[in-house]
Amino acid sequence: MEFLVHIEQDIAPDMDPDRLATVKAAERVRGQELIDQGWLRRIWRVPGRRAVIALYDVDGPDELHEILSSMPLYPWMDIEVTPLSAHALDPMHS
Amino acid sequence: MEFLVHIEQDIAPDMDPDRLATVKAAERVRGQELIDQGWLRRIWRVPGRRAVIALYDVDGPDELHEILSSMPLYPWMDIEVTPLSAHALDPMHS
Amino acid sequence: MEFLVHIEQDIAPDMDPDRLATVKAAERVRGQELIDQGWLRRIWRVPGRRAVIALYDVDGPDELHEILSSMPLYPWMDIEVTPLSAHALDPMHS
Amino acid sequence: MEFLVHIEQDIAPDMDPDRLATVKAAERVRGQELIDQGWLRRIWRVPGRRAVIALYDVDGPDELHEILSSMPLYPWMDIEVTPLSAHALDPMHS
Amino acid sequence: MEFLVHIEQDIAPDMDPDRLATVKAAERVRGQELIDQGWLRRIWRVPGRRAVIALYDVDGPDELHEILSSMPLYPWMDIEVTPLSAHALDPMHS
Amino acid sequence: MEFLVHIEQDIAPDMDPDRLATVKAAERVRGQELIDQGWLRRIWRVPGRRAVIALYDVDGPDELHEILSSMPLYPWMDIEVTPLSAHALDPMHS
Amino acid sequence: MEFLVHIEQDIAPDMDPDRLATVKAAERVRGQELIDQGWLRRIWRVPGRRAVIALYDVDGPDELHEILSSMPLYPWMDIEVTPLSAHALDPMHS
Amino acid sequence: MEFLVHIEQDIAPDMDPDRLATVKAAERVRGQELIDQGWLRRIWRVPGRRAVIALYDVDGPDELHEILSSMPLYPWMDIEVTPLSAHALDPMHS
Amino acid sequence: MEFLVHIEQDIAPDMDPDRLATVKAAERVRGQELIDQGWLRRIWRVPGRRAVIALYDVDGPDELHEILSSMPLYPWMDIEVTPLSAHALDPMHS
Amino acid sequence: MEFLVHIEQDIAPDMDPDRLATVKAAERVRGQELIDQGWLRRIWRVPGRRAVIALYDVDGPDELHEILSSMPLYPWMDIEVTPLSAHALDPMHS
Repeated sequence: MEFLVHIEQDIAPDMDPDRLATVKAAERVRGQELIDQGWLRRIWRVPGRRAVIALYDVDGPDELHEILSSMPLYPWMDIEVTPLSAHALDPMHS
Repeated sequence: MEFLVHIEQDIAPDMDPDRLATVKAAERVRGQELIDQGWLRRIWRVPGRRAVIALYDVDGPDELHEILSSMPLYPWMDIEVTPLSAHALDPMHS
Repeated sequence: MEFLVHIEQDIAPDMDPDRLATVKAAERVRGQELIDQGWLRRIWRVPGRRAVIALYDVDGPDELHEILSSMPLYPWMDIEVTPLSAHALDPMHS
Repeated sequence: MEFLVHIEQDIAPDMDPDRLATVKAAERVRGQELIDQGWLRRIWRVPGRRAVIALYDVDGPDELHEILSSMPLYPWMDIEVTPLSAHALDPMHS
Repeated sequence: MEFLVHIEQDIAPDMDPDRLATVKAAERVRGQELIDQGWLRRIWRVPGRRAVIALYDVDGPDELHEILSSMPLYPWMDIEVTPLSAHALDPMHS
Repeated sequence: MEFLVHIEQDIAPDMDPDRLATVKAAERVRGQELIDQGWLRRIWRVPGRRAVIALYDVDGPDELHEILSSMPLYPWMDIEVTPLSAHALDPMHS
Repeated sequence: MEFLVHIEQDIAPDMDPDRLATVKAAERVRGQELIDQGWLRRIWRVPGRRAVIALYDVDGPDELHEILSSMPLYPWMDIEVTPLSAHALDPMHS
Repeated sequence: MEFLVHIEQDIAPDMDPDRLATVKAAERVRGQELIDQGWLRRIWRVPGRRAVIALYDVDGPDELHEILSSMPLYPWMDIEVTPLSAHALDPMHS
Repeated sequence: MEFLVHIEQDIAPDMDPDRLATVKAAERVRGQELIDQGWLRRIWRVPGRRAVIALYDVDGPDELHEILSSMPLYPWMDIEVTPLSAHALDPMHS
Repeated sequence: MEFLVHIEQDIAPDMDPDRLATVKAAERVRGQELIDQGWLRRIWRVPGRRAVIALYDVDGPDELHEILSSMPLYPWMDIEVTPLSAHALDPMHS
């Protein structure tokens, strides 16, 4: 089941740089795990913003919430989830 | 260059059913062409709405506008385009 | 999988009364079927509005879209779907 | 009398973890009390957000305000209340 | 139980004047009945708009919806209902 | 001249409790004065929010601003004022 | 008592030109009357829009509503009224 | 004096094609005149929308309104004007 | 050239009172200078808000920005500027 | 490929003046580099706001994000990017 996920990061400009670097490094590691597990299928930056748009493929809303709230940057994230249903034309739709 | 495209269709409930069927059939044909050309990579329905979210891969905004305005349902569409930039973690990003 | 569904009906005041009565009667029949199938769990009116809030329990977004778009009043509906994930305290959550 | 209640929690990422844990534990206890009293009928998480949607069954707006403002996390909550009126089709409607 | 009700009227400028006069006359009669029944406690115009703000005192959301949807102008109305709870300072609060 | 006044209070969860108690006590005293003067005619809580809706009867916008800005909680308030004009049906309208 | 009034005109492009010319001529006559009476103190166009911003000086909201709803174009107008209170620095404030 | 002008065109899908073609042809002629006069400096399409963004260089808001309201498609346009002031870094700023 | 300027002041309730008094005194002095120069023609308070609406008469957007950013309270201001064009009926329009 | 970029700066009024001066000086240097490289074609102030509107000419969204996020003031910026496609009338369009 696919979900489109829009994530805005709200990080104060005066956040301690070391702490920020630590959290961002952990975020990259966790992001790679989500890809390796097959949950995170695509991820893009929104140009000019501390924001990403991501395509998740998960069992359902419960698993999606568990995954999103496991991210190290989660406390700084404002997340909007859009459920997606299949379109007959979609090349990935069997 | 990828763009996320959100399309809402605004079709009056009393539109002539024959005309609507004709336009929708032409829309499906055109949609398949866009897929065959490699421009339309993914397409989903937004559940409960006459709306789709689509992922396009095109040369740039000029080609994207040409493609979107070529759709038979274009006069009934309200379209929002989001430019996307690459994210280092993206599995499709080389 | 539960979804909260907010439906606004946009029916022109000068719609033909017979046609409206026919569509509304069909809508009630279809609504009862959705309840009998176990898909439509709760439904409320929003006081003062031609709007309802409904709680659906379905397999996923695909089935939800199929159900919502099968309603006789669908062409006059503006629908917003909110995916729900389980909360540990929920009395219906096992 | 049923009300749909949407609650967003606005907790700063740098809130003291001990204080947050204490408040959250109290919140769970209070939530269970609201369920045991029959006021809180359903509660869901909004996937990806520090937000819940809840269905309350209370005497009226006065009791609802008393209940909501009694929650330990209330000072961090942004709450929107939607009054609900009965729908003839509702399975719970007698 | 009191509710604040904001009503915007959306009447097309080219609506047949006779029909409009008939509906408006019926609306005044119905409004007076609501006052005589003790349901409609206060009503104001919003200056410059085809809008009113009204204070209703009813049994609950069910009765409120029944009353509002009984108004002759209801098909042309866009209504927002705000539930009110008692404030200790309110002069009308016993 | 009546005005509908919507007041949201924005008080940080970590405001010093003693200071908050002092300001709230002063607010209640000032609120009672406004009632005794005949300016504050009705006041309600918005259920679930640190917000009130109030009905003022004053000489005009100048007096209203003077009154609202005299409230001890004024620095924490976000206030929206709606001017009201008389409706022929209003029971309080002579 | 001064009010700032923002008026958007919503006139369909296919409105009968003769009728539109008649209404606009009547509007100009009425506008001049409002100026001669001292009610309409200033009026500007919003560049690029079928909109005006106007400064009215009237007895209060009742008179303002009477004046605004007397305008020949009133059925096509969407009007927002902002009450103004005196500022000590205002050159017109005595 | 430069202004940024955002224009959305709201043309009904069932507008008579001949009339539309006539108006669009006149629009192109007028657009070229505005360029030749030096008023219209840049113009872009917003991809996927019947919208343009334009940069005008005019004497002031009066001339700008005169120019915009002279366009054949003006009755179908929704226009937002943003005034611009000079930035010291601007390459075109002397 | 006239501009309508809406200014909201966002001053934290716990700002140092002495600093606030100093800035406000400087603001009044600067406001009087703007009036004496003929730039600030009218200024009103928005009742219930830390906001003013002002009418400026300046050479153009460059001068307006210079004036607005020269105000001592500028760092705490959120300002929206509306350009105005002349209306044939305006009493001040020659 | 041209993009219209709207940048709002959110700088706290109590930011350390020396740090602010340092960052602003670095911002000016970086801005001049972007101009010298041919990426930043036009830049304007929005009168009354700590905001700029800029016209960029870059290879695509990836380069645009790299450029925007390289600006010294980037952590304090809220940026909205609008992709632009060519218009046949544009004087700069060959």
